[in-house]
Amino acid sequence: MENTNLKLEIISVGTEVLMGNIVNTNARFLASMCTKMGYIINHHQTVGDNHSRLEDAIKLALGRADVVITTGGLGPTGDDITKEVAAKIFNKNLVLNDEVKKHIEDVFKKTNRPCPIDAEFRTAMIPDGATIIRNDNGTAPGIIIENDSKHIILLPGPPIEIESICKNGLIDFLSKLSKNKLTSITLKLVDIGETVASDKIKDLIDNQTNPTIAPYAKTSEVHFRITYNGTDLSKLNETVDKIKDILGEYVYTEDEDEELQTVVFNILRKNKYKLTFAESCTGGMASSMFTSIPSASTCFNGGFVTYTNELKEKLLGVNKETLDKFGAVSNETAIEMARGALSITNSDIAISITGNAGPSASENKEVGLVYIGYATKQKFGSIEFHFSGQRDKIRLSAAKHAFNTARKVLLNKL
Amino acid sequence: MENTNLKLEIISVGTEVLMGNIVNTNARFLASMCTKMGYIINHHQTVGDNHSRLEDAIKLALGRADVVITTGGLGPTGDDITKEVAAKIFNKNLVLNDEVKKHIEDVFKKTNRPCPIDAEFRTAMIPDGATIIRNDNGTAPGIIIENDSKHIILLPGPPIEIESICKNGLIDFLSKLSKNKLTSITLKLVDIGETVASDKIKDLIDNQTNPTIAPYAKTSEVHFRITYNGTDLSKLNETVDKIKDILGEYVYTEDEDEELQTVVFNILRKNKYKLTFAESCTGGMASSMFTSIPSASTCFNGGFVTYTNELKEKLLGVNKETLDKFGAVSNETAIEMARGALSITNSDIAISITGNAGPSASENKEVGLVYIGYATKQKFGSIEFHFSGQRDKIRLSAAKHAFNTARKVLLNKL
Repeated sequence: MENTNLKLEIISVGTEVLMGNIVNTNARFLASMCTKMGYIINHHQTVGDNHSRLEDAIKLALGRADVVITTGGLGPTGDDITKEVAAKIFNKNLVLNDEVKKHIEDVFKKTNRPCPIDAEFRTAMIPDGATIIRNDNGTAPGIIIENDSKHIILLPGPPIEIESICKNGLIDFLSKLSKNKLTSITLKLVDIGETVASDKIKDLIDNQTNPTIAPYAKTSEVHFRITYNGTDLSKLNETVDKIKDILGEYVYTEDEDEELQTVVFNILRKNKYKLTFAESCTGGMASSMFTSIPSASTCFNGGFVTYTNELKEKLLGVNKETLDKFGAVSNETAIEMARGALSITNSDIAISITGNAGPSASENKEVGLVYIGYATKQKFGSIEFHFSGQRDKIRLSAAKHAFNTARKVLLNKL
Repeated sequence: MENTNLKLEIISVGTEVLMGNIVNTNARFLASMCTKMGYIINHHQTVGDNHSRLEDAIKLALGRADVVITTGGLGPTGDDITKEVAAKIFNKNLVLNDEVKKHIEDVFKKTNRPCPIDAEFRTAMIPDGATIIRNDNGTAPGIIIENDSKHIILLPGPPIEIESICKNGLIDFLSKLSKNKLTSITLKLVDIGETVASDKIKDLIDNQTNPTIAPYAKTSEVHFRITYNGTDLSKLNETVDKIKDILGEYVYTEDEDEELQTVVFNILRKNKYKLTFAESCTGGMASSMFTSIPSASTCFNGGFVTYTNELKEKLLGVNKETLDKFGAVSNETAIEMARGALSITNSDIAISITGNAGPSASENKEVGLVYIGYATKQKFGSIEFHFSGQRDKIRLSAAKHAFNTARKVLLNKL
């Protein structure tokens, strides 16, 4: 099959990325989005706010790609030159755009700040004939300039502004421009490692052409993205079914935007259940991840962070004898923590996490040893885990397996 | 002053970064490290494992930089071609390096795996005359090739392997190669925005030459990095003092590695104090951020996540009348939450957070309205905040101001 996909290149503009003050999450976000639409990405570049270097970078990109996306350098100050440079390359004049001007005035009005005339003026100057995409999280819009069937797409730097522009029209524009029919399904697996999972479907991976199968290892998870280029989706579904025949028991979702905590949230909400956490080594991480979901309050009354034995006794009613005999890091303590949290918060399911996240062993319990307890009105139990890595990786693994344990309890798999 | 600093360029090799499967943290790590040593970085590139594109990228970089660092593509498989391409550009042959061969054998021996002959052979083939830097976290060493006073430095892809190579000699090598004496001090400010802070030191910023002053806006913080090129550090300190004369009251640290929560942790530990949190809208985020610090347990017994009014009453002893009259999002509730948490956990300082993180208004309280309460044995109070942005940004702002409030209480500034 001849590959007729359009080529796309990403240019990140700005000193902060160049000098390593911030991680370039924009390039990742855009690359991931555009790859899924079928664009071929062979290069990224990062350059500073320097006229001639930026001009060279854009020209280089236009020489080898059909679509060039820049991020950054669209602000109102003299440092922000991306728009001027791009307009010059395509021989476009900058003209005052009334819609953008009005938007900027509205943004300043809403936040009760005086609107600086110069700043407004510079941001509202748009290359002649360009397409504008509204930015709900800032003043500078997305700008699409076309010339000789090449496109330059100018985006501001802040990630939330790029997200807004993507939603407000950029995704639609890029989808239409790309003539591919790429469809992907992502299977997300837990309770199995990447090597073992890939080995189990080795034949499918070795013989892949269309659809393709790409494995991705994540903390405590493995994802397989199956991508089909064409209109006959039965071929995609056939491959997905073959993988699920072998690995189905490990798949927790087929929805790319769904995470373990979202799966748990959706089950809870459907059943009008309430969840609570009693956390020791994760120190609030599971609660924090869960409550970052909008409307988490419909399924969550609250939770406990009990670092010391005293608070495990006082707040959760763990028996002193249990702590003395088995230690804080034990199945027995995990179960009592979960049962205590369940009854005190009057929840339908409680998950407890107690372990040693490091950096050093305590109570003679090795770094990475974690017990996750669960309790409902019908059942209770605890599972032992051995996680590797540094403190924050162990904490994240524990929090993820807390959600996975909740999921399995709710689905009666535990 | 003429700038004689060496130019350096970073090339990230690999499909995962290119397609947006992973964030490019290597480029950030290396850029930050090399910038601090005085290297001028004008470009980063990302390319895939394609011979001709990688060759073009390295040649382009060598045309405009003195030092080119590549990451990725050093593994044993056929996809990994960085070393071959770099050797070809500098007309070097690949020769078997006994030291690297021995290291690879040792790595496999240690993990009880059979050492694959081909893999070993490929990784141990080193460009003739190159300098080798040991990799304690993997098999492929760092490789420095020199030609006509240009350097190519080849590094593997995994971040922990790059860190090992940096420690084992790369930092020393780059420090010696750079003839600069760059020294930086970072002032981290809170309770003031970037625009206002920059305006207050506008004269210093407008007239900067050496040292330079660079402002960075962060969520709820502003950082100024002051960098001096030379040996007379009194000039650096003079500028830092001038900035502190004007903005000193907002500076919470001059240590680049210190964050708000670390500042709080250090004060607590010095005084043998214990901290606790009673969190509503942040849902455990403040506790989680604090407990991610190793040894947090020395200053933290535990905390509460009380999402509902019922749990605010039951766990923290907030009065029903207070909740009915003022609402959960109020100064009055924030104070009672903090005072309750203080006494129940027997801590020395308690911080409470109650607010509306969105996405929609509740109790007629606008999205972004947050009260942060504090209590010690001597005093208590609450501060009203109006944060902007989406749910997670509001939650992060609230957590950061929770730490800042703790800091100010502990320093008797509240």
